[in-house]
Amino acid sequence: MNMIDQLASIPLFQSLPVEHIKDLATIVVRRTFRKGQTIFSEGDEGNGFYVVVSGRVKIFKCSSEGKEQILHIFSPWEPFGEVPVFSGENFPAHAEALEESGVFFFPREAFIGLIRRNPSLALNMLAVLSRRLRKFTVLIEDLSLKEVPGRLAAHLLYLSERKEGTGHLVLDISKGQLASLLGTIPETLSRILSRMSREELIRSDGPRCIRILDREGLEGMASGERRLS
Amino acid sequence: MNMIDQLASIPLFQSLPVEHIKDLATIVVRRTFRKGQTIFSEGDEGNGFYVVVSGRVKIFKCSSEGKEQILHIFSPWEPFGEVPVFSGENFPAHAEALEESGVFFFPREAFIGLIRRNPSLALNMLAVLSRRLRKFTVLIEDLSLKEVPGRLAAHLLYLSERKEGTGHLVLDISKGQLASLLGTIPETLSRILSRMSREELIRSDGPRCIRILDREGLEGMASGERRLS
Repeated sequence: MNMIDQLASIPLFQSLPVEHIKDLATIVVRRTFRKGQTIFSEGDEGNGFYVVVSGRVKIFKCSSEGKEQILHIFSPWEPFGEVPVFSGENFPAHAEALEESGVFFFPREAFIGLIRRNPSLALNMLAVLSRRLRKFTVLIEDLSLKEVPGRLAAHLLYLSERKEGTGHLVLDISKGQLASLLGTIPETLSRILSRMSREELIRSDGPRCIRILDREGLEGMASGERRLS
Repeated sequence: MNMIDQLASIPLFQSLPVEHIKDLATIVVRRTFRKGQTIFSEGDEGNGFYVVVSGRVKIFKCSSEGKEQILHIFSPWEPFGEVPVFSGENFPAHAEALEESGVFFFPREAFIGLIRRNPSLALNMLAVLSRRLRKFTVLIEDLSLKEVPGRLAAHLLYLSERKEGTGHLVLDISKGQLASLLGTIPETLSRILSRMSREELIRSDGPRCIRILDREGLEGMASGERRLS
């Protein structure tokens, strides 16, 4: 594969117009790291982001006792370091090659120069990421709809029990936190709440207030006997 | 909530530095649509993207017989139209208010002007989207690890049976397509394949070649009796 084809196969750049791929080819630096070699260290200036081309890269932090905590292992075509580099922050963790690894390095200043000359590169990358996010959101929804409504029903019944069986609940955490607790994202949680309202299991009485309308229905969902239609 | 707070609560802009939020406030247009009113039509020029502020917005296509197919319903703080607008395409579907709805409209030209003057707005938005993608990837992995290894094991056994029980399989679809088929993403599929290799259930013999090493183990996974450790 030549450089242009390699760049075009990176999901972060997928379906970018070929002129943008060619622009990126003018700034990319190809680097190789031996097994165990450090790529960057925590606190280093985020002077550019990386994409794994071959091998595997470990991202880790060290505890105060020197114990290593692996945050992520990246495989070919996955980017790493891009979040701190895009935000203009230092690297928040260490990166090390787990085996002999090839990477692409995109220097931050040169990348900003490309965007300044051609804002549509940034717009197209925003489109790429937005499209992937949209796809991931749908997938999370598909994966979540099997279990999350039951978990949510159980959580609402638990909140009710803790308040001596009242049907008027006040969520004491944000929707984002509740979504994390239930293993989903706020968008999907909102949709599940809407569907539960349509099926008259609950009613939303404001941003954090929920009224239980059909306790038996919720119990059926929590036990897995009933599903949202 | 004032405009700045409202803009800051949109996930697409979450944790943007306040100067970027203020820049966005200079170009945003607040619009209200009545129930059933068209926001844009398929084929319209993608002259700007939207964020729902209140109400709900339906995105739909019409079949040749005039039958409506709903693609998505967006709720407050969700963006819509941003993928075609960032890619410089026309709107690929219709948008209509499902109930009285307030939206923020960000004109494309003004948005590009902001990025041209200040590329770090684009970089920071790329960081926001990258961070969300990272989070979603982890969540999909958590949600997938329950069922996808079993589905993958069943698929590999099916491929083997179709080839008269051979242990040497050649995938006839790409990893991306296989990931979709199994209800996950390529990143997670790769990780599951690596774990299956580490547990000596299979061995990867090249990009599309898989050798079955432990048929009984795969059968256990397909039936749900065995899990990846």
